[in-house]
Amino acid sequence: MKLYRFGKPVETGAVLEKPLKFLQNEEIATFKLKQTKDSLILRYHLHKDDVVLGLGEQMGGVNKRGRKYITYNTDIPEHTPDKLSLYGSHPFIIIKGRYPEGLFIDYPGEIIFDIGFTTKDILEITITSTDIDVYHWQDVYWQNIITGYIKLTGGVYIPPKWAFGYQQCRWSYPDANSVTEIASRFRQLGIPCDAIYLDIDYMQDYKVFTINEERFPDFDKFVKKLADDGFHLIPIIDPGVKIEDGYPVYEEGKKNKYFCTDAKGDDFEAAVWPGLTHLPDFSKEAVRTWWGNLYEEFIKLGIEGFWNDMNEPAIFYTNYQKAEVYQKLQEAAADNKIEEIDLIGLQWQIRNFHNSREDYQSIFQHPDNSNSLCHDKIHNLYGAQMALAFSDHVQKHYPDKRFLIFSRSSYSGSQRYAGIWYGDNKSWWQHLEMNIKMLINCNLAGYLYSGADIGGFGDNCQAELLLRWLQLGVFSPLFRNHSAIHTRRQELWEYDKETLNISRNIIRLRYSLLPWLYSQFLEFASMNTPLIQPLFWQYRDDRCQQIEDEFIYGSSLLIAPVYQPNATGRNVYLPGKKWLLWQARSWEERKMQVIPAGDHYLECPLDRQLIFIAENKLIALQEPEDYVDQIKPDTLFITGLVTESASIKVLADQGKYPAFAGIAVLEINVERNGIDFKITIKTVNRELLQWQNLVFELYNGQGNLMVKHRKLI
Amino acid sequence: MKLYRFGKPVETGAVLEKPLKFLQNEEIATFKLKQTKDSLILRYHLHKDDVVLGLGEQMGGVNKRGRKYITYNTDIPEHTPDKLSLYGSHPFIIIKGRYPEGLFIDYPGEIIFDIGFTTKDILEITITSTDIDVYHWQDVYWQNIITGYIKLTGGVYIPPKWAFGYQQCRWSYPDANSVTEIASRFRQLGIPCDAIYLDIDYMQDYKVFTINEERFPDFDKFVKKLADDGFHLIPIIDPGVKIEDGYPVYEEGKKNKYFCTDAKGDDFEAAVWPGLTHLPDFSKEAVRTWWGNLYEEFIKLGIEGFWNDMNEPAIFYTNYQKAEVYQKLQEAAADNKIEEIDLIGLQWQIRNFHNSREDYQSIFQHPDNSNSLCHDKIHNLYGAQMALAFSDHVQKHYPDKRFLIFSRSSYSGSQRYAGIWYGDNKSWWQHLEMNIKMLINCNLAGYLYSGADIGGFGDNCQAELLLRWLQLGVFSPLFRNHSAIHTRRQELWEYDKETLNISRNIIRLRYSLLPWLYSQFLEFASMNTPLIQPLFWQYRDDRCQQIEDEFIYGSSLLIAPVYQPNATGRNVYLPGKKWLLWQARSWEERKMQVIPAGDHYLECPLDRQLIFIAENKLIALQEPEDYVDQIKPDTLFITGLVTESASIKVLADQGKYPAFAGIAVLEINVERNGIDFKITIKTVNRELLQWQNLVFELYNGQGNLMVKHRKLI
Repeated sequence: MKLYRFGKPVETGAVLEKPLKFLQNEEIATFKLKQTKDSLILRYHLHKDDVVLGLGEQMGGVNKRGRKYITYNTDIPEHTPDKLSLYGSHPFIIIKGRYPEGLFIDYPGEIIFDIGFTTKDILEITITSTDIDVYHWQDVYWQNIITGYIKLTGGVYIPPKWAFGYQQCRWSYPDANSVTEIASRFRQLGIPCDAIYLDIDYMQDYKVFTINEERFPDFDKFVKKLADDGFHLIPIIDPGVKIEDGYPVYEEGKKNKYFCTDAKGDDFEAAVWPGLTHLPDFSKEAVRTWWGNLYEEFIKLGIEGFWNDMNEPAIFYTNYQKAEVYQKLQEAAADNKIEEIDLIGLQWQIRNFHNSREDYQSIFQHPDNSNSLCHDKIHNLYGAQMALAFSDHVQKHYPDKRFLIFSRSSYSGSQRYAGIWYGDNKSWWQHLEMNIKMLINCNLAGYLYSGADIGGFGDNCQAELLLRWLQLGVFSPLFRNHSAIHTRRQELWEYDKETLNISRNIIRLRYSLLPWLYSQFLEFASMNTPLIQPLFWQYRDDRCQQIEDEFIYGSSLLIAPVYQPNATGRNVYLPGKKWLLWQARSWEERKMQVIPAGDHYLECPLDRQLIFIAENKLIALQEPEDYVDQIKPDTLFITGLVTESASIKVLADQGKYPAFAGIAVLEINVERNGIDFKITIKTVNRELLQWQNLVFELYNGQGNLMVKHRKLI
Repeated sequence: MKLYRFGKPVETGAVLEKPLKFLQNEEIATFKLKQTKDSLILRYHLHKDDVVLGLGEQMGGVNKRGRKYITYNTDIPEHTPDKLSLYGSHPFIIIKGRYPEGLFIDYPGEIIFDIGFTTKDILEITITSTDIDVYHWQDVYWQNIITGYIKLTGGVYIPPKWAFGYQQCRWSYPDANSVTEIASRFRQLGIPCDAIYLDIDYMQDYKVFTINEERFPDFDKFVKKLADDGFHLIPIIDPGVKIEDGYPVYEEGKKNKYFCTDAKGDDFEAAVWPGLTHLPDFSKEAVRTWWGNLYEEFIKLGIEGFWNDMNEPAIFYTNYQKAEVYQKLQEAAADNKIEEIDLIGLQWQIRNFHNSREDYQSIFQHPDNSNSLCHDKIHNLYGAQMALAFSDHVQKHYPDKRFLIFSRSSYSGSQRYAGIWYGDNKSWWQHLEMNIKMLINCNLAGYLYSGADIGGFGDNCQAELLLRWLQLGVFSPLFRNHSAIHTRRQELWEYDKETLNISRNIIRLRYSLLPWLYSQFLEFASMNTPLIQPLFWQYRDDRCQQIEDEFIYGSSLLIAPVYQPNATGRNVYLPGKKWLLWQARSWEERKMQVIPAGDHYLECPLDRQLIFIAENKLIALQEPEDYVDQIKPDTLFITGLVTESASIKVLADQGKYPAFAGIAVLEINVERNGIDFKITIKTVNRELLQWQNLVFELYNGQGNLMVKHRKLI
C-alpha cells in the first residue's frame, strides 16, 4: 500500500497511523491523473471482466459498475435507484481484475465516482478538492486489500452481546406505558427481545438529552424495571440543539462557543425537529468531550445503547432560506402583486429547503489544529465525529464495557467505534433485496455491525414481507424491526396468528444461533475481515461473481433469502462440493440433508428459510431464551457435515482428541469434570456439549480450523 | 357468466352487448356482499394456494396477492412500489384456484382491491358506488374467463403492421431539422426504424391540433419526405384545450358547449402544459365526433399514428386551488403576518396541486342519455372515450385502414380500439423487470398492443440497461425508445460503438421476426387471447405458477430476458419436455441447440438474448430491411425442433404434404409455379420458402397446428 498526498489534506481521523513515507503530487500507478484548480480527476480503463467493489453504504449492487455514486452524506427518505448518495461515505473501491487494485480517497467532501456509467469501460473519479490523501493498494488477492483498508482505518467496532438480540422500534413509543406494554407483550407471547427503542418523542420538545417527564415519570425506575425484565432501552440522539434560553445544553454550548458558525462567526441556525437549533462543532475535541459527557446522565441510569440520528446533519430549512421566501412574498404584497407569484416556482424553492447544498456551504467549523473550514469540505465527517464523541467518552470512563452505539451518518474509520443502520428504507420487496446487497457492501467497508430496518421504515408492511425480512434478519448483526409514524403497525402480533407463530420461530432461531453468530462476529472483527461476504470472497468459480442475492455468514454458512412476493421457493447456486441444507422452520426441527454444489431450485414456504452449512464446517446452537443474558452457556448443539477426519481441541487443556468422520450430522458429548473432559463423537443428528468457560475448536485432518466457539462475553 | 346489477349503473361503453338477463341486487356466488349507503363491499376468503390475476395496468407482480390496488387513473411520474394506481383501470380479476372465478366490476370510479394485504387470506373489494354492473364467471379453465372477458368487452385493437417496427421518441425533437437528422441517422447506420415521434413541443404554445410553423415550416412536405424514407411521424395529442380567444379549437368547443363544466355549469378550468385549458367532455357523442374530426388535418397529410397523452386527465393545478393559496397569502399580507406563514404547510398545499382528487370531484360531465355526472364517478373513462373519438372517426371514414393509436389512460373495453403504453417509467433495472410483468398483466386484460418506454423515460439510461431493455423490446408489440427532457440522450448512437452494433443487431432481429410476430398478434387477437402469456397459461406444472420473469410469446416462444445489471447469464425454468435454445446474437447467426425442460443457468452475455422455441412449434424469419414495408414477402426462414411426424398444409390448395420428422432444424423449400407447389423438407439448419400470398400451416401427426403463417397486411 502506498500513500499519495496532494496539497495539504485536512485531518479526517480515518487513519490513525499514517505511513511515514508518502508520495507528493505523483501519478497513482495505473490511474491517469488530471488536476484542475479545484479538483483532481482520476481515470482508469476497466477491462471487460473487471469487477468494481466497495463504496460501503451506497445504492446499486455489489458490483458497482454501470452507475454513478457521490460521496455526500444525505438525509434521503426515498431510496430509489436514481439516488447517488445515501447517509454514509466510504470512498474506498477495489478493482477486482487480473491485477487487483484498491483506492481509499481520504477526503470527506464530495467525490463523484462514475464507474462505467458515462462510458462502459471508464472509471472516472472526480474529487472536488486538491488537498487529499489517496491510499493505493496492489495485491494478488483482492481480499487483502479489504482487510488492509479495514486495518488501516482502525479495525471494527464490537457491540455488546445483547445487541445481537432482537430489537423493537417504532416512531414512536411516545410514553412509558406504551413501552411497558410492548415489553410485556414480548414476554407474554414468548418472543425473545433484548431492546426497545425511544424515537424522538421521548424528549421534551425534541430537546436532545432531555426527557418528557409527563410521558415518562420516574424515568430511572422505568429503565430499571425494563432492565429487570431483560430489556435495554435505547434512546435516539440528534445533534441539533434547540435554541431556547435556559435549556442547559444550549446555554453551555453557546457560552463555550461549541457550535458551528456562519461565515460571520455567529452560531449557525438550522431547523430540525425542535425548530431552530445550533449544530455542535464535533470537529473540536472539547466539543466531543462535552457531548460525550452528556450521555452520562443516561448511562448512570443503566442505559447502555444509543442510536445517533439526523447527523448528516439533516436540515429541514434555514432561517436564511425562509427569510428569502418571506421577502419575496412581502415584496409581492407591497406591490399588490401576490397574484403574480409563480406557485410552481415557489413550490420548487420550498421543496429545496431540505438538506440544501447551499446551506452546507454556509456552515463553518473550527477543527483543532486547523483554520476554520467550510463545512462542505468536511461534511461527511459530521456523523462520524458525533459518534466518536460517545466512543471516546465510554472508552475513557468504561474501558472494559461494550456499549451499543450506531449512527445514521458515517465516514471511513467510524467503523472502528460505531455501527450504522441503513436509514429510512421502505416496506418494499425491492428494499428487502437491497438489504442483502447492503449487508455485503457495508461489511466490505468494515461495518460489520449494521443492518436495515426490518420490515421497512416507511410505507405499510404486510405479513409476508415482514416474515421474509425477519428471516434475512436472523443473519443481520443489527436485527431491528422499525417503522415510521403513520404507517401500519409492524410489531409481530399486529398480523394474524400464523404470522405471529412463524415470527416467533424465526426470532427463536436467531437466539439459538446467537452465541455462535456473535462468536463469529468477534472472530471476523479481530481479523479485520467482513463477516457477511459475497460468495466470491471464498469461492473462485466464475458463477459466484454475479451472485448478489446470497451471502456467506462467517466461516460456515451460506444464506439464500427469499425476497420475492408469493414465492415458495427460489433458485440457489452453491459453490464448492457439497453442503448441508437446512430448510429451517424452527430451531428445534433440525432435519438436514446433504445437497451437491451447483444450481438448485429449492422449496421454501413462508415458514421456512434456506440455510446451508459448508462441508466440514460446524455451527453451534443453544436453547433460545427470552433475552440474551438468559441463554445458558452449558449446552451446545453442534451441527455440520463432516466428511474428513477431524479433531477437537479444547483450549483449556490444548489436548487433541481422536479423529472422526461421517457424512451425517454429528453428535458430540463433552462432559466436564474438573479440568478433565470426556468427549464422545457420534455421526448422528444432534450434538450436545456440556460446556463452560472454554474455547472449543474443531480441526480437520490437515489441521485447518473448521469451527471455533468461544465463551462469549 | 352472469351479470349482477346493483342500482342504476352509468353506461361505460365497456360492454357492447350486454346479457339481456341480469340479477338485481343479489349476492354474487361465493362473495360476501356488504352494502352501505355509498358503497358495495365484496369479501372473499382466499385459499392458501389461490392465485389472483388481473387488474391490467397496475403495480405489483402477475400474482396480485399481498397488495392493495385502487382503480383511479393517475398521472404518476414515480412508479415506486407504494403506488396504488397507475394510468389505466381494468377492474377485472381472476381467482385462479381449484374452482376458478372471475369478476369484472364495470364501474369507472374508485374501487379498492385489498388482495390479502390487510389480512393474508381475505380479498376485499370496496366499490365507492352502489350503481354498478358486476360480471361473474365460474369456469373449470381460468383461461376461459380471460378470453370471456376480452370477448365481452369487444375484442382486441389491431394496429397496422408498421406499428410493429422500431420507433424512436424523445421529449422532444423540437423542430423539423432534429427529426430529419434522427431519421437520416437510422438510415446511415443501417438500423431499421418505422416511426419518429413528436412530443409536446411541435405545437404552437402547446395548443392541441396546432403546429409551430417556425420550427416546422412546410409541415406537409416534411411529413411526405419522411414517409418517402419509410418513417411515420407520430404526433402527441393532449386533451386540454388552451383558453385563448381566436384559437379555433377553443372557440368551437366553447360555442358548442363541448367542455366539462364546474358545478355551476361554467366551463371547468384546469392548468396543463398550455396554461389554463378546458377539458372536452368526451362522454358526449357530439364531442367525440368533433374531436375525431380534428385529427383529420393530420390524416390528410398522411399521418397514420397518434399517441394520446395526459388524458387521465392530468391537471397541474386549478384556478380554484391557486386562488385559495393566494387568498391565504393576501390575508397574511394584510395583517402584516407574512412571517407567520407555515412554509412547510404551504409546501404541502402546493404539492397537492397536481391531480388532486378534490379537483376531479369538482368537474361535471354531461353524457348522452344521462343526467349531469360528477366526473369523479366516471373518471376512469376519460382517456378511453378520448381514444374512442379517434377510433370512431377512422372507422367511419377509413373502414379498411389500420391506424396506430395508443393512449396513456384507459379503461376496460378500450383495448378493442386502442393500445396503451405504460407511462412515465424510469431508466431503472427495476423498471425493466416491471416491464416483463406489465406485458403479461396488460395482455391478460386484452391490451395486446402495449409496451413500456424502452430504456426508461425518466432518469439517465446507461448502455447496458438500454441493450437489455431493447432485447426485451424485441418481443414487446409496441417497441418504442423514449426518454424525457433533461435526461441523457437515449438514441442508439449516443453510446459507444459496441452498444451501437449490438443494438443494430437486436433491432434487425426484431425486423427478421416481425412478420411472424405480427402474424401471431393477428392470430391471438382474433381468438381474444393474450399474446404474451405467463408460463402457466399453457403449462400446468406447479413451478410455472411463480415464474414472473419469463413469458410465452404467441404459440411458440418462451422468452427469458436478462434484467439484472452486470449479469452475463440467468436462471431459466423450462416447462414441458424439450426446447430449442437460441442464444441469439443476430438474426443471421441461428445456431441452436436442444435443451431439456427443467432448471438451467444459461450464459447470456450482453450481445445475446435467450429465445426458446417450443418443441414441434416453428417460427418464421425474413431478411430484415430498413422499414417494415420493405420486407420482402417471398422468402421465409423457418426454424424449429420437430420431433413428431408432421405435415404441411398450404391453404391455397388445401393439400397435405408428406410427413416428416427430425431433431435438427428444418429446411423447407417451397417453389411456387402457378398454383402448384413443390415442397422439399430436409432436417438441416435453414428453411427457405419462396412464398407469396398464402397461408402456410404445419400440422403434427395428430393433426394439431404447429405453426401458421399468413400473408400479412
